[in-house]
Amino acid sequence: MDKTKIDEATTLDAAEVAEAAVSNAAPKTEDLFDSTDAVRSGKPLAHVKTMTFPGPISLTNGGTLPEITVAYETYGQLSPQEDNAILIFHALSGDSHVAKHDENDDPGWWDALVGPGKGIDTNRYFVICANVLGGCRGTTGPDSINPETGRKYGMDFPSISVADIVDVQHKLVAALGIDRLLAIVGGSLGGLMALDWGTRYPDGVAGVAAIATGPRMTTQALAFDVVARNAIMSDPHFCGGQYYDKETGPATGLAIARMLGHITYLSQESMNRKFNADRNVGRKIDTSFETKFSVGSYLAYQGDKFVDRFDANSYLTLTLALDAFDLGSDRERLIAAMRRSMCRWLFVSFTSDWLFPGYHSRELVDAAIAGDKRVSYCEVKSDAGHDGFLLEDEISRYGELLRSFLHDLSLEWRPEDDERRRSLNESYGAPPKSPKRRVDYDRILALIPPKTKILDLGCGKGDLLARLKARGHERLVGVEMQEKYVVKCAEKGLDVVQLDLNEGLKSFLDHQFDFVVLSKTLQTIRNVEALLEEMLRVGTRVIVSFPNVGHRRFRERLAEGRAPSTDPKRRWYDSDDARFLTIADFEEFCAEKGYKIFRKVALDAETGETVETDENLNADVAIVVLGR
Amino acid sequence: MDKTKIDEATTLDAAEVAEAAVSNAAPKTEDLFDSTDAVRSGKPLAHVKTMTFPGPISLTNGGTLPEITVAYETYGQLSPQEDNAILIFHALSGDSHVAKHDENDDPGWWDALVGPGKGIDTNRYFVICANVLGGCRGTTGPDSINPETGRKYGMDFPSISVADIVDVQHKLVAALGIDRLLAIVGGSLGGLMALDWGTRYPDGVAGVAAIATGPRMTTQALAFDVVARNAIMSDPHFCGGQYYDKETGPATGLAIARMLGHITYLSQESMNRKFNADRNVGRKIDTSFETKFSVGSYLAYQGDKFVDRFDANSYLTLTLALDAFDLGSDRERLIAAMRRSMCRWLFVSFTSDWLFPGYHSRELVDAAIAGDKRVSYCEVKSDAGHDGFLLEDEISRYGELLRSFLHDLSLEWRPEDDERRRSLNESYGAPPKSPKRRVDYDRILALIPPKTKILDLGCGKGDLLARLKARGHERLVGVEMQEKYVVKCAEKGLDVVQLDLNEGLKSFLDHQFDFVVLSKTLQTIRNVEALLEEMLRVGTRVIVSFPNVGHRRFRERLAEGRAPSTDPKRRWYDSDDARFLTIADFEEFCAEKGYKIFRKVALDAETGETVETDENLNADVAIVVLGR
Repeated sequence: MDKTKIDEATTLDAAEVAEAAVSNAAPKTEDLFDSTDAVRSGKPLAHVKTMTFPGPISLTNGGTLPEITVAYETYGQLSPQEDNAILIFHALSGDSHVAKHDENDDPGWWDALVGPGKGIDTNRYFVICANVLGGCRGTTGPDSINPETGRKYGMDFPSISVADIVDVQHKLVAALGIDRLLAIVGGSLGGLMALDWGTRYPDGVAGVAAIATGPRMTTQALAFDVVARNAIMSDPHFCGGQYYDKETGPATGLAIARMLGHITYLSQESMNRKFNADRNVGRKIDTSFETKFSVGSYLAYQGDKFVDRFDANSYLTLTLALDAFDLGSDRERLIAAMRRSMCRWLFVSFTSDWLFPGYHSRELVDAAIAGDKRVSYCEVKSDAGHDGFLLEDEISRYGELLRSFLHDLSLEWRPEDDERRRSLNESYGAPPKSPKRRVDYDRILALIPPKTKILDLGCGKGDLLARLKARGHERLVGVEMQEKYVVKCAEKGLDVVQLDLNEGLKSFLDHQFDFVVLSKTLQTIRNVEALLEEMLRVGTRVIVSFPNVGHRRFRERLAEGRAPSTDPKRRWYDSDDARFLTIADFEEFCAEKGYKIFRKVALDAETGETVETDENLNADVAIVVLGR
Repeated sequence: MDKTKIDEATTLDAAEVAEAAVSNAAPKTEDLFDSTDAVRSGKPLAHVKTMTFPGPISLTNGGTLPEITVAYETYGQLSPQEDNAILIFHALSGDSHVAKHDENDDPGWWDALVGPGKGIDTNRYFVICANVLGGCRGTTGPDSINPETGRKYGMDFPSISVADIVDVQHKLVAALGIDRLLAIVGGSLGGLMALDWGTRYPDGVAGVAAIATGPRMTTQALAFDVVARNAIMSDPHFCGGQYYDKETGPATGLAIARMLGHITYLSQESMNRKFNADRNVGRKIDTSFETKFSVGSYLAYQGDKFVDRFDANSYLTLTLALDAFDLGSDRERLIAAMRRSMCRWLFVSFTSDWLFPGYHSRELVDAAIAGDKRVSYCEVKSDAGHDGFLLEDEISRYGELLRSFLHDLSLEWRPEDDERRRSLNESYGAPPKSPKRRVDYDRILALIPPKTKILDLGCGKGDLLARLKARGHERLVGVEMQEKYVVKCAEKGLDVVQLDLNEGLKSFLDHQFDFVVLSKTLQTIRNVEALLEEMLRVGTRVIVSFPNVGHRRFRERLAEGRAPSTDPKRRWYDSDDARFLTIADFEEFCAEKGYKIFRKVALDAETGETVETDENLNADVAIVVLGR
């Protein structure tokens, strides 16, 4: 395999990944144009293996391939029980070299995530990564020799789908003797592949992490791909795809396609940060493209460099597969697709990613929830755009989520094997600290019958859910707005989705849960009426706990001329509270709305005792069970 | 002038403008591909006039032009006093045909805004619109004949700047006998031109409205232009720009540039809305480009159509001028530029515009404020992207702002001429209703010495500011978060900027105002500490009024077990209030922060009387004057 063909990461080259990870500041001029070759060792990649599957192999769109060769790399050891295999899917222009194999090896495109002790810990897991079908980095693609003709396929390479790409990976995994993967992890195009495997080979994987991806391309992203393909195919050197025996291929068209791609991988913020300081200072580089502005010379450099290592026909083949992918064109179809899956799901998006925006990941989350699948979701705050999924800073956060997700999948592999669980936990490190005792949690737990399905809104670090989990509830979902708490929940092996409660509960179906809990969060909600309506739609019963401003302490305080503050650590000007209510106020509200109060527990938070007389005066916390 | 050259609006063609305005729903298939020619009458445009300026004319970048011809159209009548002339600047691919001249005329690109009774009312104003220098719609550009050679300029056309483009417009206005324009209105590239005129010909215009624009292109937008130019210039038919005598020009490159442009003019939301329902249904059209997806065939159609009416060299010339424009590369330089202006400013941006995003307009607003210029700003909620500024729905909102702005400019033209003011007001329509009396306003007015500079935060409909204006204060600025209230303020002739107070007051300089007022808004603010710090930075004195929860009415209510609600129309669950405080709480807060209380007025809102004894118990509104 030609070394020069595997010299770059998925969308950033390795040099840029390293550079972007080290500093968010504007890079030095020379860094912008650092060649990967200067970073790489120059040795041929020693760890790429190949496997060839004889054909004819039928494809989704009706074509066939006479044979398929797959280039792949593996990391770590497959356990004797074959319960630790993780398959990683790369993005559009990536390859099998996901990580370096040792200190002297060339950098991999996901080194920050994959390796000994990393988020995907190769000391614990057996990691496989293969170049995709249709690519040009070792696996059969348009620039491979067609054994039937002895010539390169070129445009004769059949049209392929994401499903075809995944089928080849499935063949590889089977050939490696693995029946069921512990997990699949993929980003961007790799995320689409992960979705495809999870919904088409449901018994083949325990957990799927789909990162920076979506159910389909946005129309905007699709439109960029169309323009990129038009640039390639209208290049006069394209010659209908049979340019391999010509002196020049469609280098101009491919470079323009790559320039366009680069813009979509970055965010407006990161581009301004990188290029604004010296926007009018073009760099002198050897190119036929415009170099007037700093960003222009950067694009010219990236465009030209890409031509050296990527094949235009692969670009066409893979983007067409990408653009045609649609897990479900509307909500119903998307739910149907997710229903077919049997794995746990983890979705991660990035706030500034506009190629695969967060709302697209949320469509997947919503469909998984509606399909009653176990799912977690985190939107990582980042200004790096789509490339965020490759950068160290972002990986330092979502990598922990992934680490917990993988560990929990391992624990669940054979839950009956206590010895195995104990040993996995011991080697994993310190368990999460035991939660602080909260008086309302004890009472809420007592109000919830065993085995019921619970949705906990504003679940924080997941303390209540952890106690419910320990009690044996199987269907538990948390909703939390803060990224850091989502990570904490994952550490406890909980399913939690990052959503803003003020945007409602449209992720959830009618009566999907037995109980919907909102504990000590009501007082921070802007949209109280809408949220309670939503809770009563989603849950058969609703449990709300809130601080009672009617408590004698607050009455006395106001009588002395000072406003009550229900959070002892906060004051009127810095409290998270936005709503002040008494038990009487809440009862009146329920009466007006026609909500039935089935139970009411009034507590003295200091003593932890139930208050029996004059609750509105003597209780500082109220717990109410509502229904229609 | 060739009719086919003026057949389309700036970025949408007229058919699409009409279509997009009629419905936000997905358009019918045939609408997507409606040809402008089907809409236009077929008659040649009868109203284009030309004027030729002899040369040699020197240009910013060192070149010269032997002569310049300008194509322009005018609407309405210039008043004898020459005090009603408005110059409109078009966008990149626009032309002089801003509006139709009569019912039988071809549609103009801004018909929804310009015409009899419209936002820019041609019954009142004399409107001028000229094709830009470097364009290809009648004004001298690369496809004009160079009188010195008898051949078209092609790439010999000199490099021009936005300033050169504006200078030509300035010549035209002078030649029409107009010394000073009432207003300049421009969007997109036209907005950059408006900025240029306002800062370089300060005495030439009374008011400038710069719409969907910014101090410079974002790096991302610049990068798209670079890719577009690379597509054109690497087209083998480009022939170094001398393609006019060839059979074919760089049609492929120009079409690709236009496709790319179209993507940036729309938003992700609007593209999804338009193309998602039938994304895989390509249309059969006569094109060499990919038509596989609905959006692809749309882009192919738009690309091909553009080639028929636009010149590739003009595209290069104008985008290079656009990309090189920078009113000031950092805040200091931007402030210096705005300081040179002597006009009133109106900035309008659109929430989903990512080509000229709102934060760029805010940089201009901030610089204008820092330069002590009169400025208003509105961010129109829209999902139409950059094209929003051309659409009827968006125009129905910002058009009213513009109408008020223009009327107020007219009133201020000769403020001493009472008869003229009276007559202008009478013909303008009903004056805004007189404000509701608010007891705290009377008191706040009494606390403010004459002639002082006032910043009113959360100014609502501008009632307090209107009373201060009537009292003769000259430097008055309002800040308001809601679009609809910004429009109300404009109706009163006030300067108001749309900002979220929770994001601080970074628009304003230290001690820029004598008084910063926050009337009955404190209780809705999340970030109280930061905002008060900011107010004390920006103002010498701060005036805060707030409802006092310590009032006996609230104490009695809580004593009865019900939470106080300071807004009589709202309840605990739907109030805008997020902060509850008493006068004593606020005094304690000020003492802790080291803020000096210079005056305190405690009011009984019912009687309107000052409370003299036990204010914290007897007053329901407090007004406090603070300083350091």
